[in-house]
Amino acid sequence: MLQVLLLVDLDNDTSVPVFQVCEWHSPEQLKKLLDLELRDGGEAESEILQRCRDAIRYSVKTSHPRFFNQLYAGMEPYSMVASFIAEAVKTNLYTYEVAPVFTLMEDAVLRKMIKVIGWEEGGDGIFNPGGSLSNMYAVNLARYRYCPDFKEVGMFSAPRLVILTSQECHYSISKGAALMGIGTKNVYTVPTDERGRMIPSALEEKIMLAKSEGAVPFMVNATAGTTVLGAFDPIDEIADICEKHNLWLHVDACWGGAAIMSKKHKHLLKGIHRVDSVAWNPHKMLMASLQCSAFLVRDKTSLLQHCHSARASYLFQQDKFYDVSYDTGDKSVQCSRKPDAFKFWLMWKALGSRELEQRVDRALAMARSVWANRNYQQYYLNCFSLQPEYANVCFWYLPPSMRNLPESPELWKKLHTVAPVVKQRMMKKGSMMVGYQPLGEKANFFRMVVISPQVSRQDLDFVLNEIHNLGKDL
Amino acid sequence: MLQVLLLVDLDNDTSVPVFQVCEWHSPEQLKKLLDLELRDGGEAESEILQRCRDAIRYSVKTSHPRFFNQLYAGMEPYSMVASFIAEAVKTNLYTYEVAPVFTLMEDAVLRKMIKVIGWEEGGDGIFNPGGSLSNMYAVNLARYRYCPDFKEVGMFSAPRLVILTSQECHYSISKGAALMGIGTKNVYTVPTDERGRMIPSALEEKIMLAKSEGAVPFMVNATAGTTVLGAFDPIDEIADICEKHNLWLHVDACWGGAAIMSKKHKHLLKGIHRVDSVAWNPHKMLMASLQCSAFLVRDKTSLLQHCHSARASYLFQQDKFYDVSYDTGDKSVQCSRKPDAFKFWLMWKALGSRELEQRVDRALAMARSVWANRNYQQYYLNCFSLQPEYANVCFWYLPPSMRNLPESPELWKKLHTVAPVVKQRMMKKGSMMVGYQPLGEKANFFRMVVISPQVSRQDLDFVLNEIHNLGKDL
Repeated sequence: MLQVLLLVDLDNDTSVPVFQVCEWHSPEQLKKLLDLELRDGGEAESEILQRCRDAIRYSVKTSHPRFFNQLYAGMEPYSMVASFIAEAVKTNLYTYEVAPVFTLMEDAVLRKMIKVIGWEEGGDGIFNPGGSLSNMYAVNLARYRYCPDFKEVGMFSAPRLVILTSQECHYSISKGAALMGIGTKNVYTVPTDERGRMIPSALEEKIMLAKSEGAVPFMVNATAGTTVLGAFDPIDEIADICEKHNLWLHVDACWGGAAIMSKKHKHLLKGIHRVDSVAWNPHKMLMASLQCSAFLVRDKTSLLQHCHSARASYLFQQDKFYDVSYDTGDKSVQCSRKPDAFKFWLMWKALGSRELEQRVDRALAMARSVWANRNYQQYYLNCFSLQPEYANVCFWYLPPSMRNLPESPELWKKLHTVAPVVKQRMMKKGSMMVGYQPLGEKANFFRMVVISPQVSRQDLDFVLNEIHNLGKDL
Repeated sequence: MLQVLLLVDLDNDTSVPVFQVCEWHSPEQLKKLLDLELRDGGEAESEILQRCRDAIRYSVKTSHPRFFNQLYAGMEPYSMVASFIAEAVKTNLYTYEVAPVFTLMEDAVLRKMIKVIGWEEGGDGIFNPGGSLSNMYAVNLARYRYCPDFKEVGMFSAPRLVILTSQECHYSISKGAALMGIGTKNVYTVPTDERGRMIPSALEEKIMLAKSEGAVPFMVNATAGTTVLGAFDPIDEIADICEKHNLWLHVDACWGGAAIMSKKHKHLLKGIHRVDSVAWNPHKMLMASLQCSAFLVRDKTSLLQHCHSARASYLFQQDKFYDVSYDTGDKSVQCSRKPDAFKFWLMWKALGSRELEQRVDRALAMARSVWANRNYQQYYLNCFSLQPEYANVCFWYLPPSMRNLPESPELWKKLHTVAPVVKQRMMKKGSMMVGYQPLGEKANFFRMVVISPQVSRQDLDFVLNEIHNLGKDL
């Protein structure tokens, strides 16, 4: 089979510089290298094989141990096997009839995740193409619970609905509000503390503010593991407020959900058993293949089905010979849907909960070790005075020329330009990938995300040395 | 590598009954066979290999030449290779920096599709996880063009918006209206003719009706290849009406878009060069791996970006060293997004437009050949008096006991029960898969979808014989 040959062949192709994280080319250069044009005639197999080699060669090696650029990294081989099988059997997950195996596996994984979360009476859920959609499902369910009629009549004569979320939340809350006819201005952002966690008293103030304006606050989004800082909103305290005001509480645990697997770190999500819904992406910290994103809901009244169903008669026939409650497709706003749960099921089966726990513990220990690193202490500046809660290591690099200057707006302005230059040099060299960003008033800083069990202390040393090497002349 | 071993191993595993389309087990039986529980401890590699074998064995063989159950079928090997590579390199498509190759390939594929559609001044687009989302993008863009403020303020004080679509359209229009705060009741369905095509004069009547109610019609969805009948709405005539009333015209060509590739059949989409947006799924008739769904828009003013962007500072930094217009992620409502365009790019590169054209021609010729089949003429009843326009072959099977009865409500009631019984027997035997459904007043009928070039006339003969064998006692 071509695909097997290809994989074997690539293993032996020494022309590919496998030790670089990336081989940088500008868009214009890369267009020439790839010959992207699609023509009337086809190409020979040998040419196609070269196209495949090129696609791999010029792609970023996100599984390289020095890829720290996003909230995913590394390769989980069992999960990759599952994703290969899913591609090969080519299954769409709408009915039990066409997807018997993956329907049951999705159900099993969801039930297990619900158990881990601690919803003792069970719940419901679905896998989505990404956490953004999961967060949007939460908004839609919360809205449906508040008023099921909106599904039919829309929002035209509805009172102004308000979503509350921290200023550090993921942008999908805002994108969802725009898409769903709620509007980005009706997402009220709640201030955060010095670590990036939502301040509960400020939440309550914003709720009262919305009410005083005649608006209807209907849900709170708490974040477990914010994108930039890896902060965990205090779920328990937020749940008290939501109970008091009868608000749907959703937790965006896409990034931080993995901590629930760890006895040592699950306290970060204390109170999650009280919330109404959770978004949790096993493709992030737990390293399932992309994509693997679960949406979980504590409800037991088929809210997901009622909220999203369209009851298409050509797909969800009610005169089938089996229990049609296994036809889960109408819980989704999609029609075609991939069997992403299988990627998590197979690796969980192979590794067991214990190994998943150890991986989380290892990644978080590794992330925290950066603080104790001698290079770090010498050349870097914590963005925040405390150790990180999670795997996001955020810091400024101070070139020697800036190290003994007094703090001033000019210094911060200068420091703001350092990370982009270091990033450019790092990309062109291809030695590693670490992201940077500004945050509120804070100048551009690096965010190194530590996930993969393949990452060693040597890799962390390398990063800190390399940033220094790339930026010491600035 | 485990995955290579697995694939090779499966080729040699003679215990898997590869000639069946499916090996039916009820959910309860299959749960026992699969041992779905996830435990604290992991399993040995040999056990995991068996889990993989079981997952494949009990999955429906959608690439089997006798799988006619959905709007996808068959296996395109080049596309599968691309999907394997995409899984292995583990790329998320938000920025050029992390996805250089696939960003450019997506752009190349979109440009080519836009050219094929005939938008001479170009356009924009994005690949989505399924055609439902593409249709929702159309609704959102149409709404944004009508009034960009809705993005910020929501729909609360907006006039009642109305979407127009045929009664045969895909259910994602209705799901989208619900999700997006427009409401399912504000989707006005337009009657269709005897072949399932929207009646343009009826469209205009519905537009006038909405206006007379004080509502604001803002978009029309035309379908090119309806789900059940494969009907094509008359785009040219609908475009005239949309121009007259200044309405956004979207074409859901998820299923029928492939006909554009064929000189012989592109007339089905006559007028598509005039429309505002198109959804087109290469994973259907063109057999790209699941999922591969393009949304295309004729606009050249970055409407997609303006409508969906949230400008997250940690992802879409504006102080990067390359042209950030290549960071396409903010055009999407997703954050993580798979490089699905590559699955189409590689097969197009390998086959060329000509081979894609021939495949479409072959599938449609094959579908039409069913009408001339002697078995068909003897035992079956066309649902519609004319040949199908596309690859959906819709028919009733008449068991001998019903063949000479006069037409009556009782006969139709009885006929309604035939397809579900035949389907049950077919699934339990595993010999083939063909779907059935009712439609409006019409009793349950079979819908056989012919796509794959692997399908032979023998396979079609087999299906017609087999339905007769399975149902002749009814």
